[in-house]
Amino acid sequence: MPKLALVRHGQSAWNLENRFTGWWDADLTEKGEAEARKAGQLLKGVDADFRAAFTSVQTRAIRTLWLALTEMGRAWIPVEKAWQLNERHYGGLTGLNKAETAERHGEEQVHVWRRSYDVPPPPLDRSSDYDLSSDPRYAGVDVPATESLKLTLERVLPYWDAKIAPVLRSGTDVMIAAHGNSLRALVKHLFDVPDESITGIEIPTGNPLLIDLDENLKPIAVHYLDSDRAQTLPALP
Amino acid sequence: MPKLALVRHGQSAWNLENRFTGWWDADLTEKGEAEARKAGQLLKGVDADFRAAFTSVQTRAIRTLWLALTEMGRAWIPVEKAWQLNERHYGGLTGLNKAETAERHGEEQVHVWRRSYDVPPPPLDRSSDYDLSSDPRYAGVDVPATESLKLTLERVLPYWDAKIAPVLRSGTDVMIAAHGNSLRALVKHLFDVPDESITGIEIPTGNPLLIDLDENLKPIAVHYLDSDRAQTLPALP
Repeated sequence: MPKLALVRHGQSAWNLENRFTGWWDADLTEKGEAEARKAGQLLKGVDADFRAAFTSVQTRAIRTLWLALTEMGRAWIPVEKAWQLNERHYGGLTGLNKAETAERHGEEQVHVWRRSYDVPPPPLDRSSDYDLSSDPRYAGVDVPATESLKLTLERVLPYWDAKIAPVLRSGTDVMIAAHGNSLRALVKHLFDVPDESITGIEIPTGNPLLIDLDENLKPIAVHYLDSDRAQTLPALP
Repeated sequence: MPKLALVRHGQSAWNLENRFTGWWDADLTEKGEAEARKAGQLLKGVDADFRAAFTSVQTRAIRTLWLALTEMGRAWIPVEKAWQLNERHYGGLTGLNKAETAERHGEEQVHVWRRSYDVPPPPLDRSSDYDLSSDPRYAGVDVPATESLKLTLERVLPYWDAKIAPVLRSGTDVMIAAHGNSLRALVKHLFDVPDESITGIEIPTGNPLLIDLDENLKPIAVHYLDSDRAQTLPALP
């Protein structure tokens, strides 16, 4: 039975500044690097044989994976990077400080944008300094101007079905290093979490979620590797 | 016209101990990590658009690539890892200190093993602690017991032809992070270096060799990025 480990990247420069990040390519801080190494140490102790890894095209997730794999002595496994595993695009909120945004738009509105399932923030203006349409890593990609969690899921899932699920079905243990919302989308899918409760599930950083799957890729067991840090665990479907 | 950058990994733990390493998976030292970052800084300043990278399945080359790509802000490009780009297998010399080996076998014999084109060292015993036949990264691979530079070239070139050359022919600039002898094999091929003079060409560590190719992948210009450090440059064919 295949095992799946989900690793959420740790602190980035913009997490530290409390800014909406989304697709912006903020790198890990030193603390974020330490979280990635910690995740690798935890994964090293697991009874699993990770032979494939997936990540986004965002530096903070890629480097989280690299640092974890280095700790695990598994730098040699194949890694596929895909924009479909990117963080949710925060639209016009990208780059804004969260406190300032709450002052401008009201706490309640910001809460809706952050915690609703299907309400995207206002779109990012194409003239914005934070627009990434012409970033070479997105050549050929229709870069979104904003995304809800629902829209995020709608690009995560086809990638899961096409690229990740077949590897797991072949019996291979898989690691995914990604972001709060792309991982949330996966958890919603795997655990059949209803729309209204999915944003209540928050995978902590640097604490891998290990999922045992059956042959149909339904979860049969799930736990966080660092059990000392309390967190919401998705209920088995 | 495509550009090709060859990066040789820097100091590993066994380089430091002056031991024959070959396929053994010695990791970078701190000095080796610094050399990799330096290579990345040099590559960042180059007028090239690296969109694909290749490396071996050995940690010291993979991490050299990762550290360089991080410096370049190019963590997101696809990376393919292949055992065919591994260092030459040093057979029964693996793990031995170079001075002790010279004492045991004579300086001259060791010189022949290190610098001849087609004389492999004695094979590594399958019962040796350094035998990697059962390492999971080599599942399905016929792990050699020893290799000459010629034998190294005979597995580097088919991989070059099948995987790397097509990417360059499509006009994409490519980076390869690998080892003294797998890179030497590539240089021999690209620059038509005769058997008897190839071991005189030594790509320095942390100093990328940048090659401009024509549409038939023949070199039309070549230089080391750090011109302050003297080294042998292959002559244009």
